[in-house]
Amino acid sequence: MQHNALNLLARGSTNDSRCAMPSEFDLIRRHFTRPAPHADLAVGDDAALFRVAPGMQLAVTTDALVAGTHFFHDTPPRDLGWKTLAVNLSDLAAMGATPRWATLALTLPAADEGWIAAFAEGFFDCAGRYGVDLVGGDTTRGPLAMAVTLFGEVPAGQAITRAGGQPGDDLWISGWPGLAALGLMCMQNRIRLTNASRALAALHRPTPRIEAGEALRGIAHAMLDVSDGLAGDIMHLCECSRLGAVLDADALPLAPLIAAGADELLARQTLLAGGDDYELLFSAPFDARDTLAALARKLDLPFTRIGCLTEEAGSILLDDGSKAPPRPLDVRGYDHFASLG
Amino acid sequence: MQHNALNLLARGSTNDSRCAMPSEFDLIRRHFTRPAPHADLAVGDDAALFRVAPGMQLAVTTDALVAGTHFFHDTPPRDLGWKTLAVNLSDLAAMGATPRWATLALTLPAADEGWIAAFAEGFFDCAGRYGVDLVGGDTTRGPLAMAVTLFGEVPAGQAITRAGGQPGDDLWISGWPGLAALGLMCMQNRIRLTNASRALAALHRPTPRIEAGEALRGIAHAMLDVSDGLAGDIMHLCECSRLGAVLDADALPLAPLIAAGADELLARQTLLAGGDDYELLFSAPFDARDTLAALARKLDLPFTRIGCLTEEAGSILLDDGSKAPPRPLDVRGYDHFASLG
Repeated sequence: MQHNALNLLARGSTNDSRCAMPSEFDLIRRHFTRPAPHADLAVGDDAALFRVAPGMQLAVTTDALVAGTHFFHDTPPRDLGWKTLAVNLSDLAAMGATPRWATLALTLPAADEGWIAAFAEGFFDCAGRYGVDLVGGDTTRGPLAMAVTLFGEVPAGQAITRAGGQPGDDLWISGWPGLAALGLMCMQNRIRLTNASRALAALHRPTPRIEAGEALRGIAHAMLDVSDGLAGDIMHLCECSRLGAVLDADALPLAPLIAAGADELLARQTLLAGGDDYELLFSAPFDARDTLAALARKLDLPFTRIGCLTEEAGSILLDDGSKAPPRPLDVRGYDHFASLG
Repeated sequence: MQHNALNLLARGSTNDSRCAMPSEFDLIRRHFTRPAPHADLAVGDDAALFRVAPGMQLAVTTDALVAGTHFFHDTPPRDLGWKTLAVNLSDLAAMGATPRWATLALTLPAADEGWIAAFAEGFFDCAGRYGVDLVGGDTTRGPLAMAVTLFGEVPAGQAITRAGGQPGDDLWISGWPGLAALGLMCMQNRIRLTNASRALAALHRPTPRIEAGEALRGIAHAMLDVSDGLAGDIMHLCECSRLGAVLDADALPLAPLIAAGADELLARQTLLAGGDDYELLFSAPFDARDTLAALARKLDLPFTRIGCLTEEAGSILLDDGSKAPPRPLDVRGYDHFASLG
């Protein structure tokens, strides 16, 4: 890296003798160097070294968060640290992979120690919860942004892709999709919620469904994490599996959104188009229903069956339970429904 | 990822039905989706999947480039695409690793197809040259920046770290350190060069020393890539190896800098403190000299012996060949000698 980057995480000299005072290098090193028990060599050299267990595939994902695009500049740094890792964990969960190692590229407008300490605390809260070692990184001066690359292991051939859906599969969603979008609208003063705390928690400290993703290996045929809104992500799953879907309007899990204070129309909109949820959308065969019910109890996480996959590629229909035939789901109508800023 | 990110590389739906016109998604997909023969699953799902060969360790590095900090906003995008990958390749070279896979997080202020196409062309020029598959990514709207995470393989236990230096080792430098810094000063109109083309090429399209790094496995004891200026990076190597060094002032490879048009003082400054070079600095035992001379001929890349490692931890001395004893190298004096903007 270049001479004017605060590229300590990647470089990790133990003392920056070019600076007489405690430098930005020191600050960052102090807050981001933690033990990495699953790595052979972590922060402090040109590259990290680690070993993938025999018989395992490596699953790798990268996601960046940019101030003003993905979060408000005044987002509490501890929440941001958590979320920076959590959104990447969600991608690994959606493959059924077990997270292991991460790198972090952090771009900061200034070296504010309080901010850095709180960000690191949130990041390592999440890393510790999910068993992730930070093995390397790069810190640079510039507009506030962070990019994580996350590596996990999955038994070779057992990853759950988006492409494995079968006609007739049930379509399932984990947890409480739509809550985060309600939280965002609440933050923006676009709505008032009688019970905002769960919605705000879903927005600021999303829970990646790692345990669920791992447990769904061998059960789910296709899976992805719902981050762009349920409607759009159903479309993505259908496209990759070259199938269609019929959704059961009455089965959509609106109750938690209504309990938070949304009316039914708003609940439906945030559920279908809200984004930022990081729940798992997956398809599974009919005969997995009992297994999934037991798994949901074990994980203390609801799995809601919201429809099924059909052979009609690209046809995504909503069945509202009336006598009328199912009608096409108007995905476009929900585009950019709730956006930041 | 969030609903308002152009997160196509990571998500890769084959058609974005929410947009009637060719969208930014399409643009990015068109330019960044290439075959990835070394991956089991590349762009287009929640995570990429690949296998590390038996007996290999994975070497991982990440580096971000931020407009205004690391490059000028008007840098030709094709050069920037090359350099974005090349600076990461240099880190793997410094471990003796063989590059295999990369992810790219790209933050763009606007979807300018000409820019994106040229950036992708430069990126894939470099990827193709060094056998790297782009396996995933994330594209976001925001201030221009790019973060690459690069993965390579190295036979387990054979990586060359910064910590393996031995007292009495020769200290070597590859190539033409200082040229890139001359190129930067020339760009900034701070100097005039009679022969600027090689200096500008070193700045804009650095050559990562991958083949040299691989060939130095089993020969070099310690290694890093020189990106922060030779003086600072010698200090880093010494710190990690808990040793000192004596440099031979007369052995420093000033000639290529003087040939480009620098006077001797400027040549010495840019060599010791210039940065952005991506040459390899390594230590090797006395009895490797013949092997290294043969290797340099084979690679058509000079290796210059510039000094040796000593037992005096932290003592970095410059021997100017006079009768006076070697004097401490004033690293601080060269700090931020040539900086962008």
